[in-house]
Amino acid sequence: MLIVMHHSATNEQICAVEQAVEAMGLKSSPIPGSLRTAIGVLGNQGYVDDSSIRELPGVRECIHVSKPYKLVSRDFHPESTVVEIGSVKVGDGHPPVIMAGPCSIESEAQMLTAARVVKAAGAHILRGGAFKPRTGPHSFQGLGIEGLKYLRLAGDESGLPVVTEVMRIEQLDDVCRYADILQIGARNMQNFDLLKEVGKLRHPVLLKRGMSATIEEFLAAAEYIVAEGNSQVILCERGIRTFEKATRNTLDLSVVPLIRKMSHLPIIVDPSHATGVRALVPVMGKAALVAGAHGLMIEVHPEPEKALCDGAQSLTGEGFGELMKEIGGLLTYLGY
Amino acid sequence: MLIVMHHSATNEQICAVEQAVEAMGLKSSPIPGSLRTAIGVLGNQGYVDDSSIRELPGVRECIHVSKPYKLVSRDFHPESTVVEIGSVKVGDGHPPVIMAGPCSIESEAQMLTAARVVKAAGAHILRGGAFKPRTGPHSFQGLGIEGLKYLRLAGDESGLPVVTEVMRIEQLDDVCRYADILQIGARNMQNFDLLKEVGKLRHPVLLKRGMSATIEEFLAAAEYIVAEGNSQVILCERGIRTFEKATRNTLDLSVVPLIRKMSHLPIIVDPSHATGVRALVPVMGKAALVAGAHGLMIEVHPEPEKALCDGAQSLTGEGFGELMKEIGGLLTYLGY
Amino acid sequence: MLIVMHHSATNEQICAVEQAVEAMGLKSSPIPGSLRTAIGVLGNQGYVDDSSIRELPGVRECIHVSKPYKLVSRDFHPESTVVEIGSVKVGDGHPPVIMAGPCSIESEAQMLTAARVVKAAGAHILRGGAFKPRTGPHSFQGLGIEGLKYLRLAGDESGLPVVTEVMRIEQLDDVCRYADILQIGARNMQNFDLLKEVGKLRHPVLLKRGMSATIEEFLAAAEYIVAEGNSQVILCERGIRTFEKATRNTLDLSVVPLIRKMSHLPIIVDPSHATGVRALVPVMGKAALVAGAHGLMIEVHPEPEKALCDGAQSLTGEGFGELMKEIGGLLTYLGY
Amino acid sequence: MLIVMHHSATNEQICAVEQAVEAMGLKSSPIPGSLRTAIGVLGNQGYVDDSSIRELPGVRECIHVSKPYKLVSRDFHPESTVVEIGSVKVGDGHPPVIMAGPCSIESEAQMLTAARVVKAAGAHILRGGAFKPRTGPHSFQGLGIEGLKYLRLAGDESGLPVVTEVMRIEQLDDVCRYADILQIGARNMQNFDLLKEVGKLRHPVLLKRGMSATIEEFLAAAEYIVAEGNSQVILCERGIRTFEKATRNTLDLSVVPLIRKMSHLPIIVDPSHATGVRALVPVMGKAALVAGAHGLMIEVHPEPEKALCDGAQSLTGEGFGELMKEIGGLLTYLGY
Repeated sequence: MLIVMHHSATNEQICAVEQAVEAMGLKSSPIPGSLRTAIGVLGNQGYVDDSSIRELPGVRECIHVSKPYKLVSRDFHPESTVVEIGSVKVGDGHPPVIMAGPCSIESEAQMLTAARVVKAAGAHILRGGAFKPRTGPHSFQGLGIEGLKYLRLAGDESGLPVVTEVMRIEQLDDVCRYADILQIGARNMQNFDLLKEVGKLRHPVLLKRGMSATIEEFLAAAEYIVAEGNSQVILCERGIRTFEKATRNTLDLSVVPLIRKMSHLPIIVDPSHATGVRALVPVMGKAALVAGAHGLMIEVHPEPEKALCDGAQSLTGEGFGELMKEIGGLLTYLGY
Repeated sequence: MLIVMHHSATNEQICAVEQAVEAMGLKSSPIPGSLRTAIGVLGNQGYVDDSSIRELPGVRECIHVSKPYKLVSRDFHPESTVVEIGSVKVGDGHPPVIMAGPCSIESEAQMLTAARVVKAAGAHILRGGAFKPRTGPHSFQGLGIEGLKYLRLAGDESGLPVVTEVMRIEQLDDVCRYADILQIGARNMQNFDLLKEVGKLRHPVLLKRGMSATIEEFLAAAEYIVAEGNSQVILCERGIRTFEKATRNTLDLSVVPLIRKMSHLPIIVDPSHATGVRALVPVMGKAALVAGAHGLMIEVHPEPEKALCDGAQSLTGEGFGELMKEIGGLLTYLGY
Repeated sequence: MLIVMHHSATNEQICAVEQAVEAMGLKSSPIPGSLRTAIGVLGNQGYVDDSSIRELPGVRECIHVSKPYKLVSRDFHPESTVVEIGSVKVGDGHPPVIMAGPCSIESEAQMLTAARVVKAAGAHILRGGAFKPRTGPHSFQGLGIEGLKYLRLAGDESGLPVVTEVMRIEQLDDVCRYADILQIGARNMQNFDLLKEVGKLRHPVLLKRGMSATIEEFLAAAEYIVAEGNSQVILCERGIRTFEKATRNTLDLSVVPLIRKMSHLPIIVDPSHATGVRALVPVMGKAALVAGAHGLMIEVHPEPEKALCDGAQSLTGEGFGELMKEIGGLLTYLGY
Repeated sequence: MLIVMHHSATNEQICAVEQAVEAMGLKSSPIPGSLRTAIGVLGNQGYVDDSSIRELPGVRECIHVSKPYKLVSRDFHPESTVVEIGSVKVGDGHPPVIMAGPCSIESEAQMLTAARVVKAAGAHILRGGAFKPRTGPHSFQGLGIEGLKYLRLAGDESGLPVVTEVMRIEQLDDVCRYADILQIGARNMQNFDLLKEVGKLRHPVLLKRGMSATIEEFLAAAEYIVAEGNSQVILCERGIRTFEKATRNTLDLSVVPLIRKMSHLPIIVDPSHATGVRALVPVMGKAALVAGAHGLMIEVHPEPEKALCDGAQSLTGEGFGELMKEIGGLLTYLGY
C-alpha cells in the first residue's frame, strides 16, 4: 500500500501515519517527492485494510498495490488450471466446452428432449435450472428437487455431465447428489457464506460474474472458494449492467483475455443472459471463442415460445445445431 | 403491454401476434398508425411475461405498461404506510428517525458504549452488524449470535429498538429473537427466497437497495415481502455503482422524492455506505432529510480508528453529537 | 407514442390529454385497459416531443414508439449502404477493411514509416491524428495542418486512402483538402453543428460512438449527417464508460450485430481505444470481425515506446503484421 | 507515480524500468517489498504520462499519485475563489446565488416576462439559451444572435446579469458582447479548444460537468481554463449517466462537498437537467443547498406547456416563486 500525504502535511502528521502503520505490524518507508511525501507500506502478505489510516490528518489517499486475491492470480500461480468433469476438460490446451440446455427444467419430457437435441448437436455438458431466482413474486420459481431428478435422468440418458444453480447452502446436499457442476449465479457472487461452503466440497464450481462486479471483485469471490480448498473453479462472464438497455446486459468480452492474463482459472461466456436476444446469441458466442473463452453456456429450448422462463433468449434445437456447425469451422481456425 | 410491429410487418404476422396474445388468455387491440401497427394487450392484472411474443416474426419490441409491482405502488394504495417499532414511527407525518451505531458488533463493551453515545445524542434506533458480508475471505466476519446478544443488551440498557442484518434464512429465528427490525442488505435485495421468508413474519423489515438495482427492481423486491403478508417495509437508499469512484458509491438522492411519489412505503437514506467518506456523511445526511427521507442510518463508532470494519466512514461519538444538533435545527425548518 | 394514465385518472384528465394531443395536430386513440387507460398517439411521421404532455395531470408516463432516427434505420431502408473510398468498399458483401496508423502524426518520417509498415502488412486505409483532444492542458496537442500534409504524403506514397479526425467546423476545409475520410471523434458525437456541416459535404464520414451514448443516440447522431444529404457514414464502436476500470473503456461488441439489424450503415470497431491495452487489441479485433464488424481501426506506431500519445495501446509494426496474418486465416473462415 | 512490478519480475526488468524513468528526466526510487518491488517516480512537477513505461516487460501497473490538475486544487491553492459578476458574488462566504430562466429563448416577449417573473421571485441571474444542442435534427435549434439580444434586453430591464451557453469558438465574440457569464455545456466539457479560448477571456465561465465525466476529469477541464489565465470559473453539477433511467440523469450531490474539499472553485447545481422531472426540481434544489452548493440553476418558463424545449422539467413562475420562499427559510437555517 502507498499512503499519499497532502502537499501541506506536517512532519508530525507524517510521523503519526508511520506509527499507525507500524502499529499494524508492518514497515513504513517514506518517499519524499518534490511536491509531497508518500509512505510505502511494506511487509504485508496480501491486501491491507486501510480504514485506520485513511482518515488520519494529512492523508490524501491510500493506494492499494496488493490485490484482494492471490491464490487465483497468475502472478503467484503461473500454471493454468484445467477443471475436469469426468472426461470433459475445461481450460488451456483443451477445445472449448459447450454447455447447453433450457433456462429452467419444466418437465421430464422437456429435459429428455433437450438433452437429446443438444447431445446430437455436439454439446459437452447439459444445463438446466431447478431453483429460479425470478424478479417478480408471481413468476415460475422452478421445480426444485423434482427438477434435479429430471436433469440427472436426462444427463444419464444422454451421457452428458450436468450443471445446475445452487442458490442456498441448504440446497447443497441435494444439488451435489444430482449435479456434476455447481453453478453460483450472478446474484450470489458475493454470497460469501455460500462461496465458503462450496469451497469445502470437491464438486467443480461454475462462478458467474455479478452484474455490477468489477474483475477484481470477481476474482476475490473466486478466491473465497479456492481459499477453502476447492480449486476446481470455472469463471463465467454473463454481461454487466451499464446505461445501455438495448441488450439485457452489456457483454464485456475484453474480460476474457484479461482474466486469462490475470488468473490461471478457466473462463467461459454466457451470451444468452448477456444479450437477452436470441438473434445475437450465436454471433456473440463465436466472438467469445475467438476472444479466448474456454467454453460457452447457451440456453437451448426445444420450444422456446412455450418456455416458462427466458424463452426470448433461448435458441431452438435447430438454431443450436447450426451454431454448433459454425463453431466446428471456427475450431479448425483456432487450431483444435 | 404494447407490441410494436415492424414498419414492414405483414398482415399474417400481425394476426399471428394477436393469436399469441389471445392464447395467453388476454385481449389484443390493434392500433394502426401511419408508419406501423402496434397491438395493445388488455385484460392483464399485472406485469405480462413477453418472452413468447418478443421473438415472433414482425415484432420490433414489446413495451411494458404495467410495472412488476402493484401492492407497494401508490397508484393502487394511495395512503402512506407508517412502520411502527414500539413507539418509534417511520413514515409520512412523523419526524425523521435516526438509526445509528457501529458497522459491526465487536464486543459487549463496544456495543454498550456505542448505545450510550448514540442515545445521548438523540438517536431513535440502535444498529450493529452480527453477520458481515465482507469482500475478502480473510476479513473479520462478525460475531454471530454472540453479537446479537450484545446488541439486544445494549438496546435494552439504552431503551432503543435494534436493527441488524439477516443474511440467510437459517439466521431468521435467531435474529428475530434478538432484533426489532430485520435488515436485508444490498447484496440480498434479490435473494427472493429470503424476501419471501421475511414476508411471512411480522417483524418490520429494512430493505436496502441493491448496488445496481433500478428503482423498479427495488420496488419489485419490496413487493415480494408485502405479497407474503408483511407490509412493514422500510426502503433504504445506500448508493449505486457508477463510473465515479471518488466516493464508494454514488448516492442517488433523487430516488427519495421519486419513491415517495411512486410508493406508499417509507424511505430512509444511509449516507455512510453511500459515500464511504466520514467527512461527507453529515452533510449528505442533512441533504437527504431535505430531500424528504423518513430517516437516516448512520455508522457511529466510539473509536473509529480501531474499528474492525468500515472505520473510515464511521462518525465518532462527538461527530455524531454535532450532526444531531444540526439536524435539530433542520427539523425546525422542516416543520417538526 | 403511448400515453399511460394513472390508475385513478379521471375522465376529465383523459379528455384534457386527448385535446393536447389533437392540439399538436395528431390523432389520439384511447385504449381502456382493465387497470388503467392508455392513449395511443397516431399520425406522427417520426419522434414526438412529449414535453407538453408528460406533466399534465393524471399522466403516469409517455412511452415512445417512434425512434429519433428514420433515414438510417433498416426498417425504412432495408438495403445495406456500402461506403466507397476510391476502390476500398466498407459494408455488407465486402471483406472487412483495416484502417491502421499512429494515434498522432508526429513527423514526416514517422508517418512515412508507419504507412510503409501498415501497407506492407496489408492495411487498406491509413489513419493519423493531426488535431488531438488531450485531457490535460500540457499534453501534446497535435501538429495541425503540418500533420495533415505529412498524412497526405504518406497516403500518396503508400497508395492508401487516409482518415483523420476533424474537431471543429473551421478545420473542415483543410481536412477535406488532405483527407479521404472525415473522422468525428467520440467527444464530438453530439456536436450537432459539426454533424450538420459534414452532412453537407460528400466526403465519407467515420462517426465514433460517444463514450456514454446509447445505440439510439448513436443512430440519431448519424441521422443528423444523413439528413443533410451525406449518406456515406461509417459507424465506429470504441468502447463505453462503465464501472469497470480494468480496461480503458468497456468494448460493447454486441452493438455490432445489433446495429447491423437496426441500421443499413456499416459499422467498424476500434479495439485500441476500447481496451487501452496493447495485449488485448489483436484478440478483441478478431472477435469484432467474428461479431460482424465491417472493419477495424487499429493504432500502430513504429516505436510505441516513443509515441507522444497512447503508446501503451499501439501495436508495433511487427505486432500488426502478425495480427494481419491471423486475420487472413479468419477471413477464410468467414468466407472471404 | 508508483510503478508496480510483477511478483516474478527480474532484476534486469527492474533496471530497464529505472532507466526508462531516468530517460524521462525523473528520478526512480525502488521500494523492495515482501511480495514484489515497486518503483517510486520522483521529481515530476505534475501528472506523468505513463505510456512509455506501462507496457515494459515485468511492469504490472502504473499508479498515479499526482492528479491531472493543480491550479484548481485546494491542495496548492487553499483560499476559496469567489467569482464576481457585477455585484453578485458566487463562492464561500456568500449566500447561494440563484440563476433562473427558460431553457431556450423563444421570443422577446417570453424573455421579458420570464425576467420579470424570476426577478420578482428573487433570482440573482437570468439564464436563457440562444444556441441549443438538440438531440434530433428536426428539433428547435435556438434563435441565435436574435436570442442573445432578447436576453440582454431582458437582463437590462430587470437589472439581472445574464448567462448563456456558448457552443463554438466562433460564437464567442457575440456571446461576450451580450452575456455576463459564458456557459460551457456538458457536451463541451472536454472541447479543449473552446476551453482554452474562454481561458484567454476575462468573462466568468460556468462549466458544466460532462454526463460521463469523473470528478477528476471535471477538475482537469477547469484546469484548462485557469491555465490560460481566467480563474473566474464556476463549476456546475447537472447529473451523470448511470443505469437508472427513472430520472433523466442521476444527480450526484456528493460531488458538492467533495469538490469543496478538493478545489477552491465554487460549485453550483442544476436540478432541472439532473432530474428532468418538474416535481423533483424544488426538493433537489433545496437538498443541493444543504449539501453546500454555492448556487442553483433552475429552468423557469412562464408557460412550460408551450415551451419549445424541456418544458417538462421547467418550473412555472408560480412554482419558482414558492421555491424561492422555501429557500428563504432554508437560508436562515444555513446562517445567511
